[in-house]
Amino acid sequence: MTTGTPTISGTSGSATGEPGGAAPGLVASLRAALPGDRVVTDPDVLASYAHDEAEWAENVLPVAAVRPRTAEEVQAVVRECIEHRTPVVPRGAGTGLSGGANATAGCVVVSLEAMDAVLEVDELERFAVVQPGVVNDDLRAHVAGHGLWYPPDPASSPWSTIGGNVATNAGGVCCVKYGVTRDYVLGLQVVTGTGELVRLGRRTAKGVAGYDLTGLMVGSEGTLGIVTEVTVRLRPLRDPERTVAGYFDSVVSAGEAVTAVAAAGLTPSALELVDRHCLAAVDAWKNMGLSDDAEVVLLGRVDTPGAAGDAEALRMLAAFEGAGATWAAVSTDAEEADALFAARRLAYPALERLGPVLTEDVCVPKAAVPAMLARIERIGTVHDIVIANIAHAGDGNLHPLLITPPGDEAARDRAQLAFHEIISAALELGGTVTGEHGVGLLKRDGLVAEVSPAVLAMHQAVKAALDPHGILNPGKVLTAPRR
Amino acid sequence: MTTGTPTISGTSGSATGEPGGAAPGLVASLRAALPGDRVVTDPDVLASYAHDEAEWAENVLPVAAVRPRTAEEVQAVVRECIEHRTPVVPRGAGTGLSGGANATAGCVVVSLEAMDAVLEVDELERFAVVQPGVVNDDLRAHVAGHGLWYPPDPASSPWSTIGGNVATNAGGVCCVKYGVTRDYVLGLQVVTGTGELVRLGRRTAKGVAGYDLTGLMVGSEGTLGIVTEVTVRLRPLRDPERTVAGYFDSVVSAGEAVTAVAAAGLTPSALELVDRHCLAAVDAWKNMGLSDDAEVVLLGRVDTPGAAGDAEALRMLAAFEGAGATWAAVSTDAEEADALFAARRLAYPALERLGPVLTEDVCVPKAAVPAMLARIERIGTVHDIVIANIAHAGDGNLHPLLITPPGDEAARDRAQLAFHEIISAALELGGTVTGEHGVGLLKRDGLVAEVSPAVLAMHQAVKAALDPHGILNPGKVLTAPRR
Repeated sequence: MTTGTPTISGTSGSATGEPGGAAPGLVASLRAALPGDRVVTDPDVLASYAHDEAEWAENVLPVAAVRPRTAEEVQAVVRECIEHRTPVVPRGAGTGLSGGANATAGCVVVSLEAMDAVLEVDELERFAVVQPGVVNDDLRAHVAGHGLWYPPDPASSPWSTIGGNVATNAGGVCCVKYGVTRDYVLGLQVVTGTGELVRLGRRTAKGVAGYDLTGLMVGSEGTLGIVTEVTVRLRPLRDPERTVAGYFDSVVSAGEAVTAVAAAGLTPSALELVDRHCLAAVDAWKNMGLSDDAEVVLLGRVDTPGAAGDAEALRMLAAFEGAGATWAAVSTDAEEADALFAARRLAYPALERLGPVLTEDVCVPKAAVPAMLARIERIGTVHDIVIANIAHAGDGNLHPLLITPPGDEAARDRAQLAFHEIISAALELGGTVTGEHGVGLLKRDGLVAEVSPAVLAMHQAVKAALDPHGILNPGKVLTAPRR
Repeated sequence: MTTGTPTISGTSGSATGEPGGAAPGLVASLRAALPGDRVVTDPDVLASYAHDEAEWAENVLPVAAVRPRTAEEVQAVVRECIEHRTPVVPRGAGTGLSGGANATAGCVVVSLEAMDAVLEVDELERFAVVQPGVVNDDLRAHVAGHGLWYPPDPASSPWSTIGGNVATNAGGVCCVKYGVTRDYVLGLQVVTGTGELVRLGRRTAKGVAGYDLTGLMVGSEGTLGIVTEVTVRLRPLRDPERTVAGYFDSVVSAGEAVTAVAAAGLTPSALELVDRHCLAAVDAWKNMGLSDDAEVVLLGRVDTPGAAGDAEALRMLAAFEGAGATWAAVSTDAEEADALFAARRLAYPALERLGPVLTEDVCVPKAAVPAMLARIERIGTVHDIVIANIAHAGDGNLHPLLITPPGDEAARDRAQLAFHEIISAALELGGTVTGEHGVGLLKRDGLVAEVSPAVLAMHQAVKAALDPHGILNPGKVLTAPRR
């Protein structure tokens, strides 16, 4: 699922054994500080560490990649990078969509994938302690064995790691009812910008001792610290969900159904939108026969137990029908319902088969969902770009997917324009430039557009305070200050 | 309900019109910058702004108190304080229990009580925009008129303000299921340490544009900014709760019932503990006849709708009985249940009638509740101090109340020792020194004991970054650095 071609920075792999752009002596110091197999400089391997899945975000080959197995090894890397004034770029599975894990000139990439142990599950207190490389779905499966549930469920959950989820404050399908990654992070072990290994947060249900540095780290995309352990809050496993499916003849009328669900006072456990471009791409790949019946599908779920949940499902159905669904039903067939949600999950890889996909991630107020979907449609028409839509519609988090034919440079330029116009439209409608993917490289201008200069200055001040040497993923989230 | 006698700092109210300790020209500048009635220097009035309800926390008379009516007036005060290098101490209703709002030498107190408007309620997006001086219960009543609910419910809710709740990240009875203030703050308007008026956060359900400065402000006790507007997330009004009451013959067996409720996989909407000292004090005041039957009362609530909720209430009852309740029942009488919860709310003022009350606020893992309650009992015996207990027991947040006879200095010294031993015991059991009251003045040593020097240095770095002039409530949370 990787995309883009890394640009090789400088003269990679020179005869001295120091890749181009590396601080003198850095690689030798890393090798001396760590067990033999941890440090990688083979350009072919480095290429796999050069970028995440953000289409068209700039990237270069790192000068080295390190695959630590302990927090102390991560600390050793950071200390060497401080010593050599070298940028350090942490990464998990590389499924990010904003370029947050992309390698920058002269950097060392730290891949945390090998630190993948679930260290502890406490059933009574309902938390788990995990290393950052644990895959989201693996954590979910592990704690289910204890009768517990880790809610945050990004579409990348079969591959993405908890460390990456923490770095981006990942969302997902169930956020509309259960919140995002930050809501489930009780404590962290972090290597700081001064090379200290510290514990933040707590294991108790409540606590107000000091500033919320734990919450500050979550979503900071590796620019304020490198997470080496995560204590996640868990919930009891929940009852089975009911699924309400609705077909609509336009994205705008589907958007009106989303608003109607909110206006009915419902809190669905999922409310996803998938349009015909996505359905057709999934059909073309998996032959599921989804795209014949609907222009847009809305998939709602309700997990309130018992008769109260049944009543909520019927109220959601009424909201769909009132907004003009061409067909809607409470699914009585779990397999059929799961197939619809599987199509939603497959939409992104199915579209990627058709050409490079530039993924948007705006989030608007629920009332603005129909207007925003209409704006996206118009932007696609004006710039002659195919824009597919999947959305965590229930919380107004839209993922317009801009698709260009492979190798079509003119289409790519038009897509870039459309991308920026979508961001502007979201801000005009009271939204944010990124709902769950993060700022990374792609949304740095968007962040500047969204917040005031004084707030940007607060960001820079916090960054300088916690990363005084400027080595933690510099140039991500915030443009690196000139030196 | 105020306690303690403010110590007058320097030569208050001198003939020059400048109270002692004031920076030269400060009061005149404040008067010039603000409408006439905003600035107070009358010592009798200033005395009411000198401290919150933290027993024995140091305080002095401020040099002035300012009662602004707009965010711009707050900004004007902060700018004057920057200009005159004068500490500025924000306060709401002054119901804090850690001294966070206490006046310090030469400071200006900013009382935000007059900024008490609910500016907006959005039923569809489920948020309200309020000024910081809105009283918690008033907000709750206001949004109930829109079918919505603001969950955080500190015992001070009839008096305390949302701004104060935000400053301390206040908890309450329903936190055990619904979380704390931070979980309900979507956005803030803040006057920063550089005198800027900024907006942080968002109005959308999700958003990851930049660092979580909103969450960082919540619980920072006025040391990183002064909150001038709050956007709070709301929930739909919930169904009526069922109450499960249990009587126990010791705090330890009641603590075991708390652990049993968690072990049963239940998530109560309240789980409160009230001991006989509190019951007797309420009886002595209100003659409710509560203390005849029980040494300790445990009050559980369940708000899951329908038959599922009924089943949960019965499982809670079984947990109480299994832990050795001498009597337990699901209340079928709403009035009786409300009376029990009223007694819990009245416990603190009832005890204050008996003498100065030093309030503890430790939070321990749920499994450690019985052990912690036993430790508290022993500490009370060893130091010959009456220690009453009320507790948000379901999340391990205990409030041992140390009661000393009025004017008994020796008892007061013993209580101070007991206070510190309780903190140490909580840390030994994996807990935190403050669950919901904040660090203020009273828990600064506790914070130092709880976090590592490197984490304390991170706090200092963040403080210096966002309050570069050191004027925002200096000496609270963190000991002020020497100049």
